[in-house]
Amino acid sequence: MRSIGLIGLGLIGGSMAKAIRSKTDCSIYGMDADEKVMETAVSEGVITAGLEEHFDKIDMLLVALYPTDVVDIILDVAPRLKKGCIVIDCTGVKKVICTKLSRQLSDMGLFFIGGHPMAGKEVAGYKNADASLYEGASMILCTDEYTDEGALAVADELFKKIGFSRVVHTTYEEHDSVIAYTSQLAHIVSSSYIKSPTLEKRYGFSAGSFKDMTRVAKLNENMWADLFLANEDAIVSEIDSLINHLMEYENAIEGHNRDRLVALLRDGRIRKEDDEEKEAKARGKK
Amino acid sequence: MRSIGLIGLGLIGGSMAKAIRSKTDCSIYGMDADEKVMETAVSEGVITAGLEEHFDKIDMLLVALYPTDVVDIILDVAPRLKKGCIVIDCTGVKKVICTKLSRQLSDMGLFFIGGHPMAGKEVAGYKNADASLYEGASMILCTDEYTDEGALAVADELFKKIGFSRVVHTTYEEHDSVIAYTSQLAHIVSSSYIKSPTLEKRYGFSAGSFKDMTRVAKLNENMWADLFLANEDAIVSEIDSLINHLMEYENAIEGHNRDRLVALLRDGRIRKEDDEEKEAKARGKK
Repeated sequence: MRSIGLIGLGLIGGSMAKAIRSKTDCSIYGMDADEKVMETAVSEGVITAGLEEHFDKIDMLLVALYPTDVVDIILDVAPRLKKGCIVIDCTGVKKVICTKLSRQLSDMGLFFIGGHPMAGKEVAGYKNADASLYEGASMILCTDEYTDEGALAVADELFKKIGFSRVVHTTYEEHDSVIAYTSQLAHIVSSSYIKSPTLEKRYGFSAGSFKDMTRVAKLNENMWADLFLANEDAIVSEIDSLINHLMEYENAIEGHNRDRLVALLRDGRIRKEDDEEKEAKARGKK
Repeated sequence: MRSIGLIGLGLIGGSMAKAIRSKTDCSIYGMDADEKVMETAVSEGVITAGLEEHFDKIDMLLVALYPTDVVDIILDVAPRLKKGCIVIDCTGVKKVICTKLSRQLSDMGLFFIGGHPMAGKEVAGYKNADASLYEGASMILCTDEYTDEGALAVADELFKKIGFSRVVHTTYEEHDSVIAYTSQLAHIVSSSYIKSPTLEKRYGFSAGSFKDMTRVAKLNENMWADLFLANEDAIVSEIDSLINHLMEYENAIEGHNRDRLVALLRDGRIRKEDDEEKEAKARGKK
């Protein structure tokens, strides 16, 4: 692969551009609604040039935009791409996005793959983009009956080369259901946790656990609202599950049932320890 | 102050001993139920000698034991302490502990202060104790009508000397109510979060937010059960508050109410940003 196009040079796309620049010899043609970002990215040598004049040259198009914009923009530029171009989005939900693109792009002779880089920061924009953002992270690639195996192999290779420690292949449904738990629920819990009236008294009374619980409350509310609404069933099911578990602890405390409370906490500890072991094994395998 | 006694050389007490050893010239007399820990602590030069023969010499006694043991052991050894000895416990709840000790020790000519070092790890025991555990952390000291101001000043000086960035003075009630939010609730959320049935599918699908949410699920279930039960009203109130907030997000998602969902998330983000500003100011003041 010699030439990559990138639409959206925010935190995710900008970090992709910087990682590709530092780890490969590919030309990078970029596009961003913010002209200053474009100027900076060109002057820093992160992108080779603007994408506008080069759609027909690129071997792969990466799209890192808000969930609401992804489908329209990809369908808009698709006719200008050369046959065999690999198209990968970076959106945090997959089914609502990918089912609108997969067959249609395939019919146009393009190779679409649904992507989700499992990394982020609490700060946004090109200015916070970082060539090392994806170091050690997981890249999820979602496939369906239209997926081209050769294109998938090319994508695997690129993402490993730019720092991802794992590339995981899955379906849209599996992705959306698991991400509701590992990422979406965490953002809702964090946003809820910060709202206790006790917050204003906390200074001098908190340590690492409070910080960890509330870190991702600093989010982009428009983007996350769209991600939650595009994955309604899965996220509602995870919120319900969490509330039910919280109520078990609450009932044990209110009922002064120490044995029950110890059993609930022990079960949680054992699950966390097992989870760490499985994670270590999964990382070992890659 | 020349001589400090320490009962309990686990993670908290052991770290106190190591920090005092590295930052002061005080003699440290230690006591721990585990003989091997005592041998190691003496051979490493962390403690000067066993406490058993030195109760009448020490200027301060620090007690870092399980919540269930603290009161009995302090009342047991108190008659052997010299008049004016400062006694400080390190327990994570204060009212149920301190109200049983404060007046009684004062009547014996001893100076009691309720303490809570705001630091910890997911691993326990002397082998994980660390002289730098308290660097940058907050030490909470709880006072009441029996508190001696001179003893409090001596305690302030010691804790700052061994690495704490702040020493906060408060009441038992205030401590217990705020800690229910900043620490206890985080442990219950973490223990609940790890219990989703989706857990087993998460490998390759998670990043920092999942890790942060579940970190403190690895806890000592017996100690935390006692801490929760000793602070029932406050922790139940925090669990209720969190569940109510979670349900607001859930209702907005189920009702496809994007405006409401964005407003909830925006409110959380602004609170988090304000909180970080206030934290920075509080740290600036110390």
